[in-house]
Amino acid sequence: MGLENAPFSAAEYARRLAKTRAAMEKAGIDVLFVTDPSNQAWLTGYDGWSFYVHQGVILPMEGDPVWWGRNQDANGALRTVWMDDDKVIGYDDRYIQSTTCHPMEDLAKRLGDMGLERARVGVELENYYFSAKAYLALVAELPNARLVDATALVNWQRLVKSPEEIAFMRNAAKISERIVRLGIELARPGLRKNELVAEISRAGILGVDEAWGDYPAIVPLTPSGVDATAPHLTWNGEPMKAGEATFFELSGCYRRYHAPLCRTVHLGKPPQDMIDAAEALNAGLEAGLEAARAGNRTRDVANALGAELEKIGIKRAGRCGYPIGLSYPPDWGERTASFRATDETVLEPGMTFHFMPGLWLKDWGLETTESILITESGPAEPFCSVERQLFVKD
Amino acid sequence: MGLENAPFSAAEYARRLAKTRAAMEKAGIDVLFVTDPSNQAWLTGYDGWSFYVHQGVILPMEGDPVWWGRNQDANGALRTVWMDDDKVIGYDDRYIQSTTCHPMEDLAKRLGDMGLERARVGVELENYYFSAKAYLALVAELPNARLVDATALVNWQRLVKSPEEIAFMRNAAKISERIVRLGIELARPGLRKNELVAEISRAGILGVDEAWGDYPAIVPLTPSGVDATAPHLTWNGEPMKAGEATFFELSGCYRRYHAPLCRTVHLGKPPQDMIDAAEALNAGLEAGLEAARAGNRTRDVANALGAELEKIGIKRAGRCGYPIGLSYPPDWGERTASFRATDETVLEPGMTFHFMPGLWLKDWGLETTESILITESGPAEPFCSVERQLFVKD
Repeated sequence: MGLENAPFSAAEYARRLAKTRAAMEKAGIDVLFVTDPSNQAWLTGYDGWSFYVHQGVILPMEGDPVWWGRNQDANGALRTVWMDDDKVIGYDDRYIQSTTCHPMEDLAKRLGDMGLERARVGVELENYYFSAKAYLALVAELPNARLVDATALVNWQRLVKSPEEIAFMRNAAKISERIVRLGIELARPGLRKNELVAEISRAGILGVDEAWGDYPAIVPLTPSGVDATAPHLTWNGEPMKAGEATFFELSGCYRRYHAPLCRTVHLGKPPQDMIDAAEALNAGLEAGLEAARAGNRTRDVANALGAELEKIGIKRAGRCGYPIGLSYPPDWGERTASFRATDETVLEPGMTFHFMPGLWLKDWGLETTESILITESGPAEPFCSVERQLFVKD
Repeated sequence: MGLENAPFSAAEYARRLAKTRAAMEKAGIDVLFVTDPSNQAWLTGYDGWSFYVHQGVILPMEGDPVWWGRNQDANGALRTVWMDDDKVIGYDDRYIQSTTCHPMEDLAKRLGDMGLERARVGVELENYYFSAKAYLALVAELPNARLVDATALVNWQRLVKSPEEIAFMRNAAKISERIVRLGIELARPGLRKNELVAEISRAGILGVDEAWGDYPAIVPLTPSGVDATAPHLTWNGEPMKAGEATFFELSGCYRRYHAPLCRTVHLGKPPQDMIDAAEALNAGLEAGLEAARAGNRTRDVANALGAELEKIGIKRAGRCGYPIGLSYPPDWGERTASFRATDETVLEPGMTFHFMPGLWLKDWGLETTESILITESGPAEPFCSVERQLFVKD
């Protein structure tokens, strides 16, 4: 397709390749086989719903990356990657979900053709799209190569966002604001949950002004009442009820970039313990934003939040944030640093996180969260500006 | 939650467990660790968007299955599985996307507690949600166990659908019909593609009558013109144009069950080669439906289609169908049998497939497909009844 139609500038892709290759050199890797769809897109621009079959980007230390995948999806690569057409290679359809052969047989042959049959090959061992079978097949097909764990090697390079990426996230944030406000506005007793989600999905894809809406990496999560004690239940056709809280865990998506945002609405007067928790959560978010400064560490954010929650006796067990940006299903997190007491990542300007201190208690759930940008100086900047409160509708 | 609220009857779950255990016995497996979300749901009813972290169902040869996952998602299991609460176990959040420990350490301990540290443990080596790292960690943590490849062992048990499952698929099919018709109806030059997809998504989630819409395992695929030469590109904010064909590859989803349906619309008069291809495709579909009879084989369907396409010189390389039913992202196929010339699966009543002979040619793409049910006698029955033709809008 060529660089002129790619989502990002030539300089941006050059920066990404250089950063990744420096990390490869440090890890002693000759060639990287990148299976994470987010990493593929970040390096090459490849964009398609084809990650349910084996595919990836081959990144040697020199020259342009090569996109490798199913023959019919190579057509999609020709339409989306910035490299020349000869950097796209397809494999035969007989390998697809076959019980007698495996696509890694083709990949091994291609690496051999590139003179890499004895290379130190980096593979993403912890990734949805590089199966255990793929690993075992590649080991068997490349007896003289050395497979090296390169899990999250590219993901770590994505941690600090460029101005071009931050502009995409601001577009996503505009959409997040709109759909969270829409959910709060529409919520009422008797409305079937799927009807609510239908309007949220429509608005998210319509987008805001020129920012058209892409599909988010996680579907809208909108559980009510006791279902909201679990963070990841999806919707059904049941009506919303008075006396229940519903949280909206939503993200707008602009060209695969995300800015998740959560708010909670209670239909009718909330119980006092929920009101107290919402206030403590707000104080925790405020303290966390203050702590989320360049030079501080991820753990400082988690500890600042935890101190406020403990004042009212809530001991929150889980992590409370993760990096965000470019992503594909099933997760909009980047799977590197975490906001938690044991994580020591130093914060830098341009890092972006979903600061996500959801509370899933015995009888109800409450989510008030912010997608944030670490700035040059001062506290973190939230991407969205929806009032930080428990919304109540009488 | 108990069987009274589960999607299926007690007899249905008992049937599923018995079938799976017979297959385990045949494969010499003492305990199965099921990571495929579709297989987890099929066995236990578990339903949530939590498959982006490690979780699974432990199925020993006796007693009820055990759902194992992240602590916070155990709350979701308590709300969705049919087993008693003591069959749900959670692991600590410190394992989540950690660089220093792995959830499989916890799983190995649990299997040990169940007296299975020397068992033959079946694992799904070829699955999105059992990573290479998970496999290596489990091998290291269970030095006295024997890990056996149980890829698709459960999937194969899902091939023949029960009447209860077919009823769910008929609901999904009603939604598929509605959204494909809506896409054709709305398509016009100047309409931004994301606006079209927004309406399709809304209608799919609204559903039809009492059949509320769940999220499909693949987002709407609606490429136009040259983008339709690739099967899996998603939408953007560009306007539709006169002189271009757009295919709709869509599925309604009812409680995780699918019935995909594809049709193509051309804005303006189509080129003659597209008209000819559409006619040959229809003849091929007709011939394939005739061949898709109980007692015939999957390859017979592929060959019947291929013969009709070859009459006009189209040699189609890929497979042309796959089993469908219960599914989670990233694929609505079941990943077992395929309609292709080398596949010899014998067709049985109750099997359901997406008969999917998409054409992705040099300058355009064309999809006319059917979700079908293999019947007791006679040709396969399509689930949907949208006119089988290339739609043309002037």
